[in-house]
Amino acid sequence: MQKKSQEKGLLLVVSAPSGGGKGTILQELFRRDGNLRLSVSATTRAPRPGEEHGKQYFFLGREEFEGMIAAGDMLEHAQYVGNYYGTPRGPVEEWRGQGHDVVLEIEVQGGRQVKKLAPDCVSVFILPPSMEVLEKRLRGRGTEPDEAVCRRLETARQEIPCAKGYDYIVYNDRLEDAVADLEAIIRAEKRKYTRNSDCIERVLEDAEAQ
Amino acid sequence: MQKKSQEKGLLLVVSAPSGGGKGTILQELFRRDGNLRLSVSATTRAPRPGEEHGKQYFFLGREEFEGMIAAGDMLEHAQYVGNYYGTPRGPVEEWRGQGHDVVLEIEVQGGRQVKKLAPDCVSVFILPPSMEVLEKRLRGRGTEPDEAVCRRLETARQEIPCAKGYDYIVYNDRLEDAVADLEAIIRAEKRKYTRNSDCIERVLEDAEAQ
Repeated sequence: MQKKSQEKGLLLVVSAPSGGGKGTILQELFRRDGNLRLSVSATTRAPRPGEEHGKQYFFLGREEFEGMIAAGDMLEHAQYVGNYYGTPRGPVEEWRGQGHDVVLEIEVQGGRQVKKLAPDCVSVFILPPSMEVLEKRLRGRGTEPDEAVCRRLETARQEIPCAKGYDYIVYNDRLEDAVADLEAIIRAEKRKYTRNSDCIERVLEDAEAQ
Repeated sequence: MQKKSQEKGLLLVVSAPSGGGKGTILQELFRRDGNLRLSVSATTRAPRPGEEHGKQYFFLGREEFEGMIAAGDMLEHAQYVGNYYGTPRGPVEEWRGQGHDVVLEIEVQGGRQVKKLAPDCVSVFILPPSMEVLEKRLRGRGTEPDEAVCRRLETARQEIPCAKGYDYIVYNDRLEDAVADLEAIIRAEKRKYTRNSDCIERVLEDAEAQ
């Protein structure tokens, strides 16, 4: 257990094309893995009734947000309908320092930005097995008009090529398999040599001391 | 299941310092994972009673062995007490082509050679939690005289720094954890982007065809 407490948590970037079922997969992953934390985004838009600072979002002023971008304190950010949205680095690093693995659930443009500011992040792209399956799922929801489904499919077509910049590809074929893949990726990444060079030194020092 | 049959198996290089408990871990891994195959070494030494060609070893003539080295058909090789020992590439690639993951259980010098000839291999170094634990285990066997234990420890001290060239470090602390780590590494490696670029193209082509 001594080993565990010294390990810094992973930063896991998870992206998927529109309607890729990322939500369901992450929900199940969080249910199983109590060490995971979901990153909370920051925004300059006004809180809606019932929304709490630090829960749904960190609600920030425009100047404060822009100051954080300038200082490199936003792992990624974008503007949408006149407001900023982004991922503050501070809370992510704090959790990681406590040994928690932190999940960033973001779209592909954000994913690229995170890789630049946090090169030790682990990025996973969740891919539908085919466009046909994706379309069936979107229509199967039955909640959206035909036009909205078409728009989502068009967005997905543009997002799928971005999978090329990611470290891992997980297929959203069967929920059970996709979740087990993510669990395996988290476990394996912790065993990477690059994250364990200290521990080797420790065994070696011990060896020299003998 | 369609996906499975098209995937090339992994080549897993597993090394550990003398007495590192690699045998027990691999035995349990093979018990659980029916898709694994253990690579059979080749040697120029004469077969002992009961040994079969292709089971314990591929028994080869010296000229044949040297011809295979020259042709790049030995993934690694070494001489020991006047005989050659090595890993023929052919059977390994045949199994991988059938979708089997192949384990090469070799010492550190061999590990480096394999990485050169098969750069897509996945290498794992099994590390004892400390030299003290390693010594206790070696003495605990009670089968070897003190001198032999000291020689094994000295070899281990020389081999541990070689962990630096490996992709993953697995601690041989608790058997259950070490085996689960190896299972996770195998599963995660299959999800690496570099092993899935074809599948992305397939989804993309499908998207364009719509």
